[in-house]
Amino acid sequence: MSLDAVLSRIDTDLPHATERLLDLLRIKSISTDSAFKQDCQDAADWLIQDLQSMGIDAEKRPTPGHPMVVGHAGPADGKPHLLFYGHYDVQPVDPLNLWHRDPFDPAVEETDTGKVIRGRGAADDKGQLMTFVEALRAWKEVEGEFPCRITIFFEGEEESGSPSLVPFMEENAEELRADFAMICDTTMFQSRTPAITTMLRGLLGEELTIKAATKDLHSGMFGGVSINPIRVLSRIIASLHDDTGRITIPGFYDGVPELPEELRQQWQGLAFDHAGFLGEVGLSHPAGEQDRTPLEMIWSRPTCEVNGIGGGYQGEGFKTVLPAEASAKISFRLVGDQDPLAIRESFRKMVEDMLPPDCEAEWKAHGASRASATSIDDPAFAAALGALSDEWQVPAAYIGCGGSIPIAGHFAKILDTTPMLIGFGRDSDQIHSPNEKYDMESFHKGMRSWARILDAVSR
Amino acid sequence: MSLDAVLSRIDTDLPHATERLLDLLRIKSISTDSAFKQDCQDAADWLIQDLQSMGIDAEKRPTPGHPMVVGHAGPADGKPHLLFYGHYDVQPVDPLNLWHRDPFDPAVEETDTGKVIRGRGAADDKGQLMTFVEALRAWKEVEGEFPCRITIFFEGEEESGSPSLVPFMEENAEELRADFAMICDTTMFQSRTPAITTMLRGLLGEELTIKAATKDLHSGMFGGVSINPIRVLSRIIASLHDDTGRITIPGFYDGVPELPEELRQQWQGLAFDHAGFLGEVGLSHPAGEQDRTPLEMIWSRPTCEVNGIGGGYQGEGFKTVLPAEASAKISFRLVGDQDPLAIRESFRKMVEDMLPPDCEAEWKAHGASRASATSIDDPAFAAALGALSDEWQVPAAYIGCGGSIPIAGHFAKILDTTPMLIGFGRDSDQIHSPNEKYDMESFHKGMRSWARILDAVSR
Repeated sequence: MSLDAVLSRIDTDLPHATERLLDLLRIKSISTDSAFKQDCQDAADWLIQDLQSMGIDAEKRPTPGHPMVVGHAGPADGKPHLLFYGHYDVQPVDPLNLWHRDPFDPAVEETDTGKVIRGRGAADDKGQLMTFVEALRAWKEVEGEFPCRITIFFEGEEESGSPSLVPFMEENAEELRADFAMICDTTMFQSRTPAITTMLRGLLGEELTIKAATKDLHSGMFGGVSINPIRVLSRIIASLHDDTGRITIPGFYDGVPELPEELRQQWQGLAFDHAGFLGEVGLSHPAGEQDRTPLEMIWSRPTCEVNGIGGGYQGEGFKTVLPAEASAKISFRLVGDQDPLAIRESFRKMVEDMLPPDCEAEWKAHGASRASATSIDDPAFAAALGALSDEWQVPAAYIGCGGSIPIAGHFAKILDTTPMLIGFGRDSDQIHSPNEKYDMESFHKGMRSWARILDAVSR
Repeated sequence: MSLDAVLSRIDTDLPHATERLLDLLRIKSISTDSAFKQDCQDAADWLIQDLQSMGIDAEKRPTPGHPMVVGHAGPADGKPHLLFYGHYDVQPVDPLNLWHRDPFDPAVEETDTGKVIRGRGAADDKGQLMTFVEALRAWKEVEGEFPCRITIFFEGEEESGSPSLVPFMEENAEELRADFAMICDTTMFQSRTPAITTMLRGLLGEELTIKAATKDLHSGMFGGVSINPIRVLSRIIASLHDDTGRITIPGFYDGVPELPEELRQQWQGLAFDHAGFLGEVGLSHPAGEQDRTPLEMIWSRPTCEVNGIGGGYQGEGFKTVLPAEASAKISFRLVGDQDPLAIRESFRKMVEDMLPPDCEAEWKAHGASRASATSIDDPAFAAALGALSDEWQVPAAYIGCGGSIPIAGHFAKILDTTPMLIGFGRDSDQIHSPNEKYDMESFHKGMRSWARILDAVSR
């Protein structure tokens, strides 16, 4: 075989690969909002057609929510069987007024730091997903066959808690089991150092609504004497952390490990530029637990954050209303052996215990997944790390990740398949934010990296 | 003159008076939302035409915001000169889904407690305002002339902080000065006891936005290490009251008087049914300062309430965003000699002092008015109280009011005109809330009450 020919094919086909990605980005596949149900179907259909066009036996598989895309190809010849996982759904786009272009009218833009592909999903995860689709395409075109047995597994509910994922994996475990699950939904370590992510935080999501009076009240007539749900909710949120940044929920830190000395040393060696990391978004002070380093806070410590709050009058001007209710979306990032269900229970009990008379709490449970850590003993990890180092011409690193990719744990537990998390996103990609982008360099070198990894792992 | 003939005229004309009020209620004069600017003009025009039709020399007077309606009529014959004040603007209507009819398609509805006029502004303040317009109309039709010199003064910015009011009053002080300013924007004391309100709380409105990062962040990548403005805002709100319900802003209670023993006795004699007052809106516990009675909390104690809060993702589903900002609308009800500007300064300083690094507070000032208390020494008060007692067949009362009607203080201070606050609203009117209504009894007996007051005061 000739890796060079595949890499060269990727280089010459870049304009077409870019067009294909822009096509996919035009589909408004926002999974959390039921108004975009058909768009999610359209994104799945687009991918199936594309995979079929390169000889992958792909089909749409229904779930109670948005469909899965599953495809198979390649020889079962004793070489490692690789599963490629990605998600075709994207985050909502509000606040829309902060985008400098229509989030679903993507384009290649010139910026001070090079070309970027701008649009919702450019990095998370359509752009990343297409890096390995394009690598597989180039390989097939040059070699006439894939280098090993390939399974494709794309979901459409990653941005809305993946409710159908675990049942689908359990029902289709035989079909989906592979040696490695390549998951392309992570970033590099600081802009130009490629990385394999081996520690991921878990995620617990809760929606809390405090209800008091049966209707909105006039704050002149009722203010002072009637309980205000915004004040109650604020007091609850304020009590979730103590003055040192530590989370106060009883039992919350059960199962949180101290960082092994070896890893601490290795992380110190990475010389993480926390001032630059924060400075890029206008901040300067690490705000979390005051006795932890910024990299620890992000990679190995649990968090409790409020992702949204709302109540009363939020329009233009002023309205002297005492609202009947107020609500917040609160999420927890989990590490080590923290048990999301036990924390949910303890959190809810703590809140219920704090409620003053006349108030009740209404709950909506969102995702609940444990943290995961991958063993890197299999030589495939060293092979992949070498391939990444070759492509980027800097030593690749094993790193942690603050985000939660629950699927990594599911692959290990349900499918007995080793997750390998490699992505080419950058902290500057503004995923989940207005003006999301994916660097053309990430897209291009991402494809080339996958070609090298295919070569290294299947050799 | 014959008061009986005027009262009888009011009775027979009630169907037409109701039609006129429904006409006025159909105009969407929401002053706080600039989308309804023309509707505010329309409401002013409607009133001018109506006043002119009954021989009042009325005209629309421009301001930087919504126009004033000013009218004059009647003989300058040594009898008291009465100014009638009201406002033609209304509150926003959200949450719209809680209305059982279009708020601007008003109608007379039959309810368990009698006929009501349902629609935004039915009670606050279009229905109340029309009680004295209709009384003046009946008087003119029966007697051919008004009983004394009359000035009409309607504004269109009461629900949005009355920014043009003071400048307009100052510029037109000569024209507007009268002996008494009849202000019809208050309730009776518990449903069937008419009242003259002599104590009003002041109002200070503040809009606070906490800003941190330059954009919304991903809570996986940035959670824990980056400051969360929702948490900062919640902590600020939670700190505004101590555990006993007392407000913690330095100097806040400066100028708050203790209730005179005489008034305390009188209020106890009113036998306020606080259980019923709270029970009607689904509450059971007075939530304010724990060492104060409910009537004290509402009429004579200052408050600090959050009228609205918002930040991050509030849509369907979940979004793991760390927002760049969060904001709240906070209002204070003031009593006695509390200085709204001093409190604004102290509040802002307290908040600024609490801000963690990387956060800044952005402020928007809304209304700032002192509390007011009226002397009832002039015999016109006793005359009006007697007229009210005659109409409702129960002894009328001098009472306090939890709401803020800043204009009362302005009349006294700027125009040297004694405010006399008489209204026929009820606590059940749901003003500022969905399904606002005005009882037909309030409307009908309100007109009759004004006819009696005109008679008693001008005799």
